[in-house]
Amino acid sequence: MPTLHLEMHPGRTVQQKRAFVREVTKVTAETLACPPESVDILISEVPRDAWAKAGKLLADA
Amino acid sequence: MPTLHLEMHPGRTVQQKRAFVREVTKVTAETLACPPESVDILISEVPRDAWAKAGKLLADA
Amino acid sequence: MPTLHLEMHPGRTVQQKRAFVREVTKVTAETLACPPESVDILISEVPRDAWAKAGKLLADA
Amino acid sequence: MPTLHLEMHPGRTVQQKRAFVREVTKVTAETLACPPESVDILISEVPRDAWAKAGKLLADA
Amino acid sequence: MPTLHLEMHPGRTVQQKRAFVREVTKVTAETLACPPESVDILISEVPRDAWAKAGKLLADA
Amino acid sequence: MPTLHLEMHPGRTVQQKRAFVREVTKVTAETLACPPESVDILISEVPRDAWAKAGKLLADA
Repeated sequence: MPTLHLEMHPGRTVQQKRAFVREVTKVTAETLACPPESVDILISEVPRDAWAKAGKLLADA
Repeated sequence: MPTLHLEMHPGRTVQQKRAFVREVTKVTAETLACPPESVDILISEVPRDAWAKAGKLLADA
Repeated sequence: MPTLHLEMHPGRTVQQKRAFVREVTKVTAETLACPPESVDILISEVPRDAWAKAGKLLADA
Repeated sequence: MPTLHLEMHPGRTVQQKRAFVREVTKVTAETLACPPESVDILISEVPRDAWAKAGKLLADA
Repeated sequence: MPTLHLEMHPGRTVQQKRAFVREVTKVTAETLACPPESVDILISEVPRDAWAKAGKLLADA
Repeated sequence: MPTLHLEMHPGRTVQQKRAFVREVTKVTAETLACPPESVDILISEVPRDAWAKAGKLLADA
């Protein structure tokens, strides 16, 4: 039942997301000792004008 | 002050969302004993290429 | 696959949570047209000194 | 390392978001006694047909 | 209606949280042009053995 | 800057969490092509009386 939320910038390809969910599910099942079928992953893409670090939008950095 | 976040796939109509927030608010107020006015609901639609189960994007399943 | 997160203050009984998840799952399945088995609900209790409204912690209001 | 997530309606300008992240980072660093460099802020815009209060979508209110 | 979630390590005093919510609400209302009454802030404390950076739990760093 | 949130039941050891964050950071960096230093992971443990599936608290299932 582990559920993972990923926040990252847009720009990755579907191939990258596919590899990410495959590999993260694999190591999650191994390290947390749960069936891969129980792992959910949700990906959220946060634009660079909606993410700030140190008080600056990344779009401005 | 109960706040609910819903994550689901895109594709529901505004009529379905309208019924969902009306009915969920009603049963939340009843079961948690709070005024309906205090219930907030936020809906987030997660595309099928951004949600994975068992290591596979739903878009690929 | 709809997933709901509830944030509320502590203090509800297990009976209230049990009724909440039963009723919310029922109306979610009805209004969004999905099997009840696909509905997940996660409850998070936020203490009154960790929730603020209008700039005041609820513990101080 | 404080991380802030803001949920609000769409419609603010980039200038408003820029001022928001600058000012919130400043007061966060001051009140929580941490370096501004450690503060992350993520902004999420929730459409009016995806946010409900008192059982009504804001788009319908 | 802006809602803010803060994630940080435990260890701040109630005085610090009180100052944080007062000041963040103030600058949020100013920069986003909304009434302070509409601002909600939820604080979540994440223990050092539950937050990792660069593949290491902060408790181990 | 990828940030991951994990929700799971309590009961894993610190050794399991340590292995989880190490391995997930590694595959995240590989598949998303980002430095491991930029990966944050936050773990949240959700008790069995606060997680429901199919309308039933897991504590009751």
